[in-house]
Amino acid sequence: MTKNIKVNAAILIIGNEILSGRTQDTNTGTLATWLNSIGVKVNEVRVIPDVEKKIVDTLNILRKENDYVFTTGGIGPTHDDITAESVSKAFGLKYEIHNKAFKILESYYKQGEFNEGRQKMVWMPENAELILNPTSGAPGFSVENVFCLPGVPSILKSMLGSLKNRIVGGEPILSYTLSLKTVESEIANSLKKVQNQNKDVEIGSYPFFHAGNLGVSIVLRSENQSKIDTCNSQILEFIKEKKIEIVDR
Amino acid sequence: MTKNIKVNAAILIIGNEILSGRTQDTNTGTLATWLNSIGVKVNEVRVIPDVEKKIVDTLNILRKENDYVFTTGGIGPTHDDITAESVSKAFGLKYEIHNKAFKILESYYKQGEFNEGRQKMVWMPENAELILNPTSGAPGFSVENVFCLPGVPSILKSMLGSLKNRIVGGEPILSYTLSLKTVESEIANSLKKVQNQNKDVEIGSYPFFHAGNLGVSIVLRSENQSKIDTCNSQILEFIKEKKIEIVDR
Repeated sequence: MTKNIKVNAAILIIGNEILSGRTQDTNTGTLATWLNSIGVKVNEVRVIPDVEKKIVDTLNILRKENDYVFTTGGIGPTHDDITAESVSKAFGLKYEIHNKAFKILESYYKQGEFNEGRQKMVWMPENAELILNPTSGAPGFSVENVFCLPGVPSILKSMLGSLKNRIVGGEPILSYTLSLKTVESEIANSLKKVQNQNKDVEIGSYPFFHAGNLGVSIVLRSENQSKIDTCNSQILEFIKEKKIEIVDR
Repeated sequence: MTKNIKVNAAILIIGNEILSGRTQDTNTGTLATWLNSIGVKVNEVRVIPDVEKKIVDTLNILRKENDYVFTTGGIGPTHDDITAESVSKAFGLKYEIHNKAFKILESYYKQGEFNEGRQKMVWMPENAELILNPTSGAPGFSVENVFCLPGVPSILKSMLGSLKNRIVGGEPILSYTLSLKTVESEIANSLKKVQNQNKDVEIGSYPFFHAGNLGVSIVLRSENQSKIDTCNSQILEFIKEKKIEIVDR
């Protein structure tokens, strides 16, 4: 496969528990960090409820707009786990027992334990490719550019290793952070000038307040290290002029 | 104003730092918990980058589909803070100096400190209503049903108090949690039957693994306490039959 320079993805978090505030989503951070490390830029994240029509419609938008879509949640054994059936509908595929997944779980559980509840987890879109689960047996799956992962963060994390070879990233997105003892308004104008002169570098400015320290982190992101370096040297110039202290880099 | 029974909202998180995985979003949880407590159900959350077209387009979808939209991020003084200008464009309003916000910040800062960088924070859509900021001065703002809040979690939290009177919620969404020493597959079928008999109650099933304990939390949500109670008693029945231990309720 040819490497595109820019490869992008959307993350679709499926679950009422995030929308009610009951559960703090951490899968976005896990997936975003991992995707960035393999050269995939996250364009968008959406969190939606366990509602079939919403899942189908959202998936059909995101899978056309992005190189990859990663879903989390809704692939367990209970009635509110409707991701696999919804993905089948989105692609117009049969929702059926996946033989290989059946065999995996049949041998994973002790005799008699592979009950009806657990068997629900082997129902998938026809011809789905499995994503192996080293933690708790039940695999995730992919259809075309859509990859369906579980909602439990530790299980999701353990499944990323086996996915790496199936995602073709672009140039890795490099990042450099410079933390300053200043406030944003002190550097806003100078930073804007640097951004205007370096359109290919994404410059973010993030105030921080922790452990009694107040400052600003400037984050430079690009696929091109020399562009980051040029940008950084221009920032160092105005910082020196303004006598701003660097606290971390 | 008449209270609708169902009032819903979308949350729009604006910021490259969430999409890169650099920052863990916690504002969704804060807003979702608060909105639920005042009878507003969160329909959807989207996280999008600091890109004007994306902000304008997304906002124009969400503000039509929801009673309220809450945005977080992008209202500071730096070049990547483009929420106010984007909201102006989404509504076709002028982006201009807000006189009341100007006066607030002029008196908030010491003489000479209200510099050009900080003055950017008083540029808003024309006739925006301010959302006062007891932490760091710079106000948020609202236009029609869109409420724009900052990205820094502690500042966002401090601004919710003053917002409460401007959001008209519906019936509060009640919630009851029952935690069991079991696995999801043991209760999946029985729980599905209860869900089918209680369509108005949203029943969620969430496995947990912590401190060496493994179990399932069942969450019942509805505007109607007696419907939750009926549902709960049906669950207690099958739990008793199955001899499943209740660990928390």
